[in-house]
Amino acid sequence: MDNRRNFLKKSMLAMGATSLGSDWLYAKDTTSSLAKKIQIQPGDTILFQGDSITDAGRNKENLEPNQANAFGNGYAYLAGSQLLNRFAGKNITIFNRGISGNRVPDLIDRWQQDCIDLKPNILSILIGVNDFWRTKDSGASNTPEQYKSQLKQLIESTLTALPDVKLIIGEPFAVNGVKHVDDSWYPEFPKYQEAAAEVAHELNAVFLPYQSIFDKALKNNTGAYWTTDGVHTSMAGASLMAESWLQLLR
Amino acid sequence: MDNRRNFLKKSMLAMGATSLGSDWLYAKDTTSSLAKKIQIQPGDTILFQGDSITDAGRNKENLEPNQANAFGNGYAYLAGSQLLNRFAGKNITIFNRGISGNRVPDLIDRWQQDCIDLKPNILSILIGVNDFWRTKDSGASNTPEQYKSQLKQLIESTLTALPDVKLIIGEPFAVNGVKHVDDSWYPEFPKYQEAAAEVAHELNAVFLPYQSIFDKALKNNTGAYWTTDGVHTSMAGASLMAESWLQLLR
Repeated sequence: MDNRRNFLKKSMLAMGATSLGSDWLYAKDTTSSLAKKIQIQPGDTILFQGDSITDAGRNKENLEPNQANAFGNGYAYLAGSQLLNRFAGKNITIFNRGISGNRVPDLIDRWQQDCIDLKPNILSILIGVNDFWRTKDSGASNTPEQYKSQLKQLIESTLTALPDVKLIIGEPFAVNGVKHVDDSWYPEFPKYQEAAAEVAHELNAVFLPYQSIFDKALKNNTGAYWTTDGVHTSMAGASLMAESWLQLLR
Repeated sequence: MDNRRNFLKKSMLAMGATSLGSDWLYAKDTTSSLAKKIQIQPGDTILFQGDSITDAGRNKENLEPNQANAFGNGYAYLAGSQLLNRFAGKNITIFNRGISGNRVPDLIDRWQQDCIDLKPNILSILIGVNDFWRTKDSGASNTPEQYKSQLKQLIESTLTALPDVKLIIGEPFAVNGVKHVDDSWYPEFPKYQEAAAEVAHELNAVFLPYQSIFDKALKNNTGAYWTTDGVHTSMAGASLMAESWLQLLR
């Protein structure tokens, strides 16, 4: 953990930051300036984990890495394809193990086989919109505090098993005014977003602020252009996410 | 046609070219330096046409533009997603109408509804590997000269109907030594590649030299890394094609 702390500390100093306040966590530009970029090493294994936004219709019978139909058509496929092209000489292995509808407890249940056993060097997790959403549409009981505690437990257990893994935690996001998402999501949903940011901060993970990335994109086109239903991405939205994700790497 | 000729002529002069020899047609670097880039205009309609490499498993029940499952998972999806993200303010419309197994005569049969009626401003065509391949595995009779004549007829009829369309003709490609492709493809297959280049040249289309792009990529990894079977792309290969395609635009 010391190396991880030093890594973040140096990054913070390099950008002239003096405190880890919420301005940092919710910086409005992309994260490329927020931390030293993650360097791809020869033979690296990269794992995309999450819910339907990561799943994106992948063929779950195909568990092989680096194969198009095992990736669906979301940001994980777009980012993964570009990684395999850009780093063709490094023989990297990329898995997508997102599953539609998942909340953090679902990840915990399948974490050994769907994460630890794959031994990722880089782990990207996007989870949380269902942890909130099911409290609205299915009467599930799950507070932002519980979500934070569960997510932190998941990451801590991951760091115990894979102490050198480089972590990317994506911010759950929603676009208000598109189909499933309306004012009733606020101010509750942002508490889950803040929880994800806090976990990333407390465990020295890279935080990818998708909400501000989508908010910024709304200057160029409508919410329905970037998401199909306020939650799931259009082609443009998936590309926006992949572009932001790739900016974390060098 | 005069504007089209002037466009190419200026581009050639700008790069110091004095003749349209085969060195130009088969330049070893990407096409970004070969011609002035195509500029996306507000409201442009872009159409990807071709065979299975373009089709890439798209849902043919969904004929809508700009929708992920109507695009499959090949270079057209990767390029299309990035276009919709990068040019989000321009409200562009993108269609994929590639169909697996197609040869030029198949395109001719469906060209009115699958091209002309869509009124593309930018038309990208990748066709030819089956025009050759079926002469090998199905006893079809089709010479490079016939392929060239059919393709030229297709493009000329397109230019009659859509005189301002900007054309991109992709070079059919194959990676020798991977599954379907072996020495028996040579020297016959390159004659079809040359025919595609000649049609592009004679009709002032932008020519995208995929063969030299894949040949160059073999310096970084194997043929089986870039294609699944010598003909169809892997994730890395689809990204390589999309990257090259996107470099034609600004």
